[in-house]
Amino acid sequence: MTTSTGLLIADLVGVAVFAASGASAAVAKRLDLFGVAFVGFVAALGGGIFRDLAIGEVPPLAFGDWRYAATAAITAGAVFWLHPQLARLRTTVLLLDAAGLALFTVTGTLKALDAQVPAVGACVIGMLSGIGGGLGRDLLTGEIPVVLRREIYAVAALAGAVVVAVLQRVGQAGPAPIAAAAVLIFVVRVVALRRRWAVPVATLRPPRTQDPGPDPR
Amino acid sequence: MTTSTGLLIADLVGVAVFAASGASAAVAKRLDLFGVAFVGFVAALGGGIFRDLAIGEVPPLAFGDWRYAATAAITAGAVFWLHPQLARLRTTVLLLDAAGLALFTVTGTLKALDAQVPAVGACVIGMLSGIGGGLGRDLLTGEIPVVLRREIYAVAALAGAVVVAVLQRVGQAGPAPIAAAAVLIFVVRVVALRRRWAVPVATLRPPRTQDPGPDPR
Amino acid sequence: MTTSTGLLIADLVGVAVFAASGASAAVAKRLDLFGVAFVGFVAALGGGIFRDLAIGEVPPLAFGDWRYAATAAITAGAVFWLHPQLARLRTTVLLLDAAGLALFTVTGTLKALDAQVPAVGACVIGMLSGIGGGLGRDLLTGEIPVVLRREIYAVAALAGAVVVAVLQRVGQAGPAPIAAAAVLIFVVRVVALRRRWAVPVATLRPPRTQDPGPDPR
Repeated sequence: MTTSTGLLIADLVGVAVFAASGASAAVAKRLDLFGVAFVGFVAALGGGIFRDLAIGEVPPLAFGDWRYAATAAITAGAVFWLHPQLARLRTTVLLLDAAGLALFTVTGTLKALDAQVPAVGACVIGMLSGIGGGLGRDLLTGEIPVVLRREIYAVAALAGAVVVAVLQRVGQAGPAPIAAAAVLIFVVRVVALRRRWAVPVATLRPPRTQDPGPDPR
Repeated sequence: MTTSTGLLIADLVGVAVFAASGASAAVAKRLDLFGVAFVGFVAALGGGIFRDLAIGEVPPLAFGDWRYAATAAITAGAVFWLHPQLARLRTTVLLLDAAGLALFTVTGTLKALDAQVPAVGACVIGMLSGIGGGLGRDLLTGEIPVVLRREIYAVAALAGAVVVAVLQRVGQAGPAPIAAAAVLIFVVRVVALRRRWAVPVATLRPPRTQDPGPDPR
Repeated sequence: MTTSTGLLIADLVGVAVFAASGASAAVAKRLDLFGVAFVGFVAALGGGIFRDLAIGEVPPLAFGDWRYAATAAITAGAVFWLHPQLARLRTTVLLLDAAGLALFTVTGTLKALDAQVPAVGACVIGMLSGIGGGLGRDLLTGEIPVVLRREIYAVAALAGAVVVAVLQRVGQAGPAPIAAAAVLIFVVRVVALRRRWAVPVATLRPPRTQDPGPDPR
């Protein structure tokens, strides 16, 4: 599979912003230099490793191309020394995460389509490789995964993935339309954060008898 | 590898019941529509993705065949609108999980054997692909993984996997015996839940001096 | 890919010590026989499965070679019956984990280099396959992942991986130098535990206004 320069740049920028997102979250948890580097590393490379395994790209680019690991390590280190103060860290994590979500969803969908994965599956792979980095970051730092919080997240990625698949189907998958799809994901996600766009929660009547709750073990 | 119709149906029913299991668990945690869909999705497709990667089926069927993702999404959505009330949700999650465990263990073992994985490894792959969906659901919803609770779980799956491997070795792997193996796993697991079948815990003398407990970081 | 006898022995010893590490951690959490076996299993085989998927070894050796699963199962069972008492379990888990980290990092780096992965990526694969078992054990038992605690861990593994890569580049990758690299990782890690070697934490000024903390969902 040939990786165009544009796709490589988008992938590396995605690696950088997810590394910064993971490193920021680790700084907020008072982890040390190596903990910050490791969380940044997992957040930056996890989504791409999953994507490459799913499409049969072996070894995953995160291992086959040294620039991926170098980008992640340098960015995480930079955050360790140059990070914003605590009050702005949460916002920083979420904004960088939105950028990474947008970039990785678009590159993931394109790479899956390139690998002859059918359109539906390619959109799912794109969405999952966009989500994966944030999920790894949140699981490692003991936070509720961002994909499960109230503001819409996964569906913003899925919408962008569908746009990319449609563009590719109609032969319009040039750099500008593809970049527009990434911007769409980012904007939808950031607006959802600011306006707390959410969808309904399933209605549950309170139990009449006391629910014993989950198994204590 | 050819996928017979029976194997496909069993796999899709397994996808559906695990999607319902994950969606029910998410409803109990008061997640919103997309959170319910995502947990259902991961629970439904996680085990199969692991199995397909382990046997070299690329891309995994969850991405290569749109019916897998569609089944998961539709079932999760149906649970969101039609779910039972809270007092019955826990039981629902566990019964559906037992059905998914049975179906995925059987299809996973058969697919691994088909892919020339040796018998022992094929049973392990079958057991892990049966367990994987519930594990993903529990990790995402912050519950103690069902495989680690007191009632027997993994060994029920392993027993069924061994039955499937033996049936295949003696050339008796027709639809009826294979279905019987799945029923065996389901029945053993459900009876274990009702009768709280468990095995011993390792004996530990209480410490004489106070154990400081895990590292506070 | 040919697996020399030395590499196989190192891999199986790594499987055994990680199985013992995982089983010990599960005993400390008062899990039952099957829970102890499962955590031991995941800790023992997780790192190797990740490594084999990353280098395209399908099916992973954990499934393709019955001796891996057998070693893990037997060792976990032995720990269940022969475990030390609670006050010494934590130390036991950490010492065994250090041995597994050393062995799997070295075998992982060598196998990745054997599979033509470039040197940087091979070192990362080696480090991650050394870390993976402990990470799985800690996530399953609800502990803070050992890789994120204060005493150095990942960087000890990475240093050993780099030594292995350099030895292989200069054609000195014989059994004795490779064993010395494993011993190096183990010694660095154990000394770090005893002397609490750590690196700085990022400085954070306390917030002037009260930080609302993470999203309560």
